[in-house]
Amino acid sequence: MARRRQSVTIKHVAADAGVSLQTVSRVINNEPNVRPAMKERVQESIDKLGYVPSIAAQRMSGSRSYIIMAINDRDLTIADWRAREGRDWIDQMLLGGMLTCAEHGYRMLIELVDTHNDHVERELGAAIAALQPDGIILTPPHSENPLITGLLAERGIPFARIGSKQGGLGIAMTMGDTHNARLATEHLIQLGHTRIGFIAGPEEFSLSNWRVDGWKSALEAAGLSAEGLCERGDFGFASGSIAAEKLLRTDDAPSAIIASSDQMALATLEVARGRGLQIPRDLSIVSFDNSPIVRFTQPPLTAIDQPIAETTSRAVELLIENASGKRPAEPISVPGKLIVRASTGKAPSANLSEPRTRSA
Amino acid sequence: MARRRQSVTIKHVAADAGVSLQTVSRVINNEPNVRPAMKERVQESIDKLGYVPSIAAQRMSGSRSYIIMAINDRDLTIADWRAREGRDWIDQMLLGGMLTCAEHGYRMLIELVDTHNDHVERELGAAIAALQPDGIILTPPHSENPLITGLLAERGIPFARIGSKQGGLGIAMTMGDTHNARLATEHLIQLGHTRIGFIAGPEEFSLSNWRVDGWKSALEAAGLSAEGLCERGDFGFASGSIAAEKLLRTDDAPSAIIASSDQMALATLEVARGRGLQIPRDLSIVSFDNSPIVRFTQPPLTAIDQPIAETTSRAVELLIENASGKRPAEPISVPGKLIVRASTGKAPSANLSEPRTRSA
Repeated sequence: MARRRQSVTIKHVAADAGVSLQTVSRVINNEPNVRPAMKERVQESIDKLGYVPSIAAQRMSGSRSYIIMAINDRDLTIADWRAREGRDWIDQMLLGGMLTCAEHGYRMLIELVDTHNDHVERELGAAIAALQPDGIILTPPHSENPLITGLLAERGIPFARIGSKQGGLGIAMTMGDTHNARLATEHLIQLGHTRIGFIAGPEEFSLSNWRVDGWKSALEAAGLSAEGLCERGDFGFASGSIAAEKLLRTDDAPSAIIASSDQMALATLEVARGRGLQIPRDLSIVSFDNSPIVRFTQPPLTAIDQPIAETTSRAVELLIENASGKRPAEPISVPGKLIVRASTGKAPSANLSEPRTRSA
Repeated sequence: MARRRQSVTIKHVAADAGVSLQTVSRVINNEPNVRPAMKERVQESIDKLGYVPSIAAQRMSGSRSYIIMAINDRDLTIADWRAREGRDWIDQMLLGGMLTCAEHGYRMLIELVDTHNDHVERELGAAIAALQPDGIILTPPHSENPLITGLLAERGIPFARIGSKQGGLGIAMTMGDTHNARLATEHLIQLGHTRIGFIAGPEEFSLSNWRVDGWKSALEAAGLSAEGLCERGDFGFASGSIAAEKLLRTDDAPSAIIASSDQMALATLEVARGRGLQIPRDLSIVSFDNSPIVRFTQPPLTAIDQPIAETTSRAVELLIENASGKRPAEPISVPGKLIVRASTGKAPSANLSEPRTRSA
């Protein structure tokens, strides 16, 4: 008996009548501001499909916007779009977010906000006032900006914070950074590498340090040292060059480097080539992000694939559930995968138990 | 005396008060449903900034959504996102569209619609009902779908049709396809090529044929033949392989090929390599689109850069102007540019006046 009820939802009615969910809910709730013709049209679809309004549908009394807003860093995003180097963070957010939104009758809108702006609260306040989103997805570095999280909490808007483990306001979500860095490091250890360098991201991003933690813990578990093997960049190419130079110019240089971003990995590739190193014969490289660019380098780069689409999809689901009062256990972790390509190979030194000496 | 009026707009007031444009306009128009505290807050900003409401601002009586909807093909877009090959059509639309929207206090939202769906009118009707966009940007193949353009005209929503020259409903816009194909062909003629092949896109897209026209007209102007030198693909890689094989396996094969999409150009590159041809020594290749991928091939591809960001930006401006009654002369053409890279070089035959014979 419950079959019909469960299968036909307000969404089917809206699609059949060619109207919005809000309009259907206004008709169901018998609200005054609905034209008789519209009411008749919706009622026809309700009758035709045999729709029985649920409590949830009755609660949709036009007060929802059915919009989820995904807030990204303005400068970084525009720089990526202008550079046209194929970085597809926004596309992957749209892929996961839009499709999951659509399943629930919602829409996702990308909003760009400058986290360093003195007027960030005002800017965000205006965006919220204009669109009245039912949920907001924050991405780094917004995810841990207390001006932003404070404002959202004050306005009572459910939000998810991607790249944050901090408890408290909103839903904390990570893409398994510690786990991912451990995966990358273990892959290199299995290939016989004993000196594995790491190029970390900026301190401002918590995930930078979680990745360092993952790298260190895998080294420790294998009895290997991290001493002098970590440099820090800002995710950009230039900072990656400087970091790779520092790591590679020492007498006891690493035989493998993990870079915390694709741009820093590309820079490492270039620096290594400039020093006459062959990849992966003399140096193995693992990248982080797995944006399209790393498939087109020579050789293509082994990379940690960031599950951006899955994480955004999960965030949308959590926000929609949250709106009906469900609160998830936190933080939510959506782990990434290691994609092995041609930039990683066996360690140059055959004898794994002895300290490695570079063969020039 | 006009200086102050011109410089302070409703947008400054909204930003200063941290509220939406709609709220400011409700206060200005003295509408009933505004809380006294909100009214006071907006009035304070108006007084502080010395804002004088314009007629335009007074017309913004809350009936606008300040949303521009950019409608893209569902299957093609999702396939691009899943493939992760760096195609950045949506990003470039966002770059041009979002930033121009933001300048005018609008927002852009991407909507995916299946143009082949029997329910396309219903699907689009539901999206319009939900979001009440003030303007819509159609992209191919939606731009010339009469079910879609008819529906928009009926609802009185201003819309732009990118990739369409058809008169009538909406604002027709092109990215200078005929001009662009002519540019590419002239570049090859200047390099001494006399047999220049063309891989066209599917007939379903009008722009496919405009590009063929541009190629043909440049050949004619130079007294060269197009006979047997045009094959048709569907913009995808597989179709490009078949077309390139057909062009290259003849006795009198072209010494240069223009492909109407990056994927078909990549396929041409692969087919040429498979036949032992060196690029550009034995075959020059020009691509269309200039998405990030063509910078990472060996050699990088000479390509026509599609001005997606500029065209979308222009579409947003036209739609906003259109809302206040201005109607542009059509069709609007935003021409592309030729980006010369290493895939094009001098024609193999030194003597340009004689028919070229392939040097195996």
